Amino acid sequence: MKVDQVKYAARFEGVSGSAIREIFKLLARPGMISFAGGNPSESALPDGEMAQIAAEVLRSDGKRILQYGATEGYPPFVETLRTYVQAHFGVDMSANGVLPTTGSTQGMQLLLSALIDPGDTILVENPTFLGNMQSMRLFRANLVPVESDSEGMDPVDLERKIVRHHPKMIYTIPTFQNPTGCTLGLERRKTIAALAEKYGVVVAEDDPYHDLRYVGEELPTIKSFDREGWVVFLGSFSKVISPGLRVGFLVAEPGILRKCVIAKQGSDLHTGLLNQAMCDEYIRRGWLEKHVAGILGDYAAQLNTMLDALQGMKTVASYTRPEGGLFIFASLEKGLNATELLARAVEKGVAYVPGTHFYPEGGHENTFRLNFSKSTPDEIIRGMRLLEETFGRA
Amino acid sequence: MKVDQVKYAARFEGVSGSAIREIFKLLARPGMISFAGGNPSESALPDGEMAQIAAEVLRSDGKRILQYGATEGYPPFVETLRTYVQAHFGVDMSANGVLPTTGSTQGMQLLLSALIDPGDTILVENPTFLGNMQSMRLFRANLVPVESDSEGMDPVDLERKIVRHHPKMIYTIPTFQNPTGCTLGLERRKTIAALAEKYGVVVAEDDPYHDLRYVGEELPTIKSFDREGWVVFLGSFSKVISPGLRVGFLVAEPGILRKCVIAKQGSDLHTGLLNQAMCDEYIRRGWLEKHVAGILGDYAAQLNTMLDALQGMKTVASYTRPEGGLFIFASLEKGLNATELLARAVEKGVAYVPGTHFYPEGGHENTFRLNFSKSTPDEIIRGMRLLEETFGRA
Repeated sequence: MKVDQVKYAARFEGVSGSAIREIFKLLARPGMISFAGGNPSESALPDGEMAQIAAEVLRSDGKRILQYGATEGYPPFVETLRTYVQAHFGVDMSANGVLPTTGSTQGMQLLLSALIDPGDTILVENPTFLGNMQSMRLFRANLVPVESDSEGMDPVDLERKIVRHHPKMIYTIPTFQNPTGCTLGLERRKTIAALAEKYGVVVAEDDPYHDLRYVGEELPTIKSFDREGWVVFLGSFSKVISPGLRVGFLVAEPGILRKCVIAKQGSDLHTGLLNQAMCDEYIRRGWLEKHVAGILGDYAAQLNTMLDALQGMKTVASYTRPEGGLFIFASLEKGLNATELLARAVEKGVAYVPGTHFYPEGGHENTFRLNFSKSTPDEIIRGMRLLEETFGRA
Repeated sequence: MKVDQVKYAARFEGVSGSAIREIFKLLARPGMISFAGGNPSESALPDGEMAQIAAEVLRSDGKRILQYGATEGYPPFVETLRTYVQAHFGVDMSANGVLPTTGSTQGMQLLLSALIDPGDTILVENPTFLGNMQSMRLFRANLVPVESDSEGMDPVDLERKIVRHHPKMIYTIPTFQNPTGCTLGLERRKTIAALAEKYGVVVAEDDPYHDLRYVGEELPTIKSFDREGWVVFLGSFSKVISPGLRVGFLVAEPGILRKCVIAKQGSDLHTGLLNQAMCDEYIRRGWLEKHVAGILGDYAAQLNTMLDALQGMKTVASYTRPEGGLFIFASLEKGLNATELLARAVEKGVAYVPGTHFYPEGGHENTFRLNFSKSTPDEIIRGMRLLEETFGRA
């Protein structure tokens, strides 16, 4: 029997692979200016320090680091994370535990595994992060978008949809959201925590961009308003240390955390111990704080360069003005289709992600997401000019 | 609403976490002799070489290693794996691809994700590896044991059960099986490949112990007899380089591989690039071959010490005589219950895994699994004496 007769699992129905990951493959062409990824800039990757740290932790604790570890994490790192999460994100660690994960992508997968049966509803921002939408679809969840504006999810629509759909989960990226760059307001943060408790819905608070603030005041996490344990916090070191190391963490009350640990036993047994030990050492030495402070200035300049360019573009109808993060979300003038125009842009040497991929129900073909962290101000100016040419001749 | 009212996903029904992982936590007590894990010996973990390699790859390719990578793997490592898999496991790489995974635990999860819907049947050896049984149960698979003896699955019972149950998958650990240490015979390997093709069933060939042969001749993999792509090969560097690095690989024909890649996008996006680069360098330098050759002598002596001790134990009715790997499987005389006696053994300072956990249908309370790789010959002699005391006084 030929193997093309194999029957794949039903979870793949309607899932064809991440659109964004496919776009990435086109970007290897030399000279391509990419606003498509969510990559840190090269200069923000601490390769020298990490070479030093990797050798040192392997020399001092190599026999433990190369051996099997506990699913619950490398003990020194778990200890560091507890302190870090309490101090940095305002989480009451007497009522919560923290689990190191293989990137926050895995944190999401574990939480979906803990909670989601086929057909369960997840309320999401509109638009929202396409990677986690794909994860949710592989769990055969029913994604219901909540009306969202420049301050995130609209609480009135959120409550209406909780009552109507009895969701299992509310998924939000509260700070410098992907793809919009917008930040959930303070009152809305409190309201979401309260609604979660009132209706018994788990909130997945995905906050990887938290530290990348260029203007304005830091806001408390939704998790910091959580009294009963309904909020699960997903953190990541991908944007502030290195995505290639694949280290994130999940913070939850003990019952949910235990299910995530069991799911992780069947996922990868544990996150690489060297990866955990390296992040641990980086934080313990106080290098993380200094490193973040060091990259903010460049990223702020890149953001401003891109905002300036957008202001001059006649083809662009509107765009967000983020206070931090990695992304700006924009829409083209009526009649222009950002999805169709991507191929032409790539031909010209510049790439973005069409906004339609971020909408659970599709549409919004005039929108697109721009990343500014991976390109220098010069590249941003040139790339935006190429975009204006592309859009202007459509 | 209190969070203890949260409804978990149905996949957790009957899954309470890995028995073996829970036992591991008891073993931190100083002086404990553990025959419970599947850990490489301390001396088999190349910490010095890895400290050197980690620093070198980060210095030479750190900007790429710390950045996001492709789900399909770190390109130099994928290239190395293609050559390695073809030469070492006899796989036709013109018809197959290889995907780096976060340990072979993840390889199994991706393959389950690609194929298994709730209620689908998987045929397994009896007994079989409890970790992957838990993974299968989290996918709500129906596990059906195939009669197995010292040469692995009985082909007559296997074909009978294929016809009766229309399984989606046959799961086998053909070489130095976990937990028995037994090896699937040559003719049976050919038969399983032929049955897979005849009936259109995917074979998951899980072969992490392949290189740990102390006596006898190497046997070709089932995958090497695969003509149509029904066999998926799962490899691991956990037993021959380091489990803490979490690097394995999955070899499959392009259609199945593609589904595994999509599943991996939602699992951890990609395996840590440093982890892949370190294994890559270790193989490219020719250190893997030398390293394996160097550990075989010690492991063989440890195996023989344990076999000698078993021969003198009056409480032991029978045991396997593996030609390699990490495990011996034994049964106690009638009336002795290895599951119940574990607590007493641990009190005395020695641990094993009760055999019942490895049987899909439970029972076999008189059986237990012994690991010999983590203990020195001295520790093995002392530990086995403690076991004989424990069992003898029952």
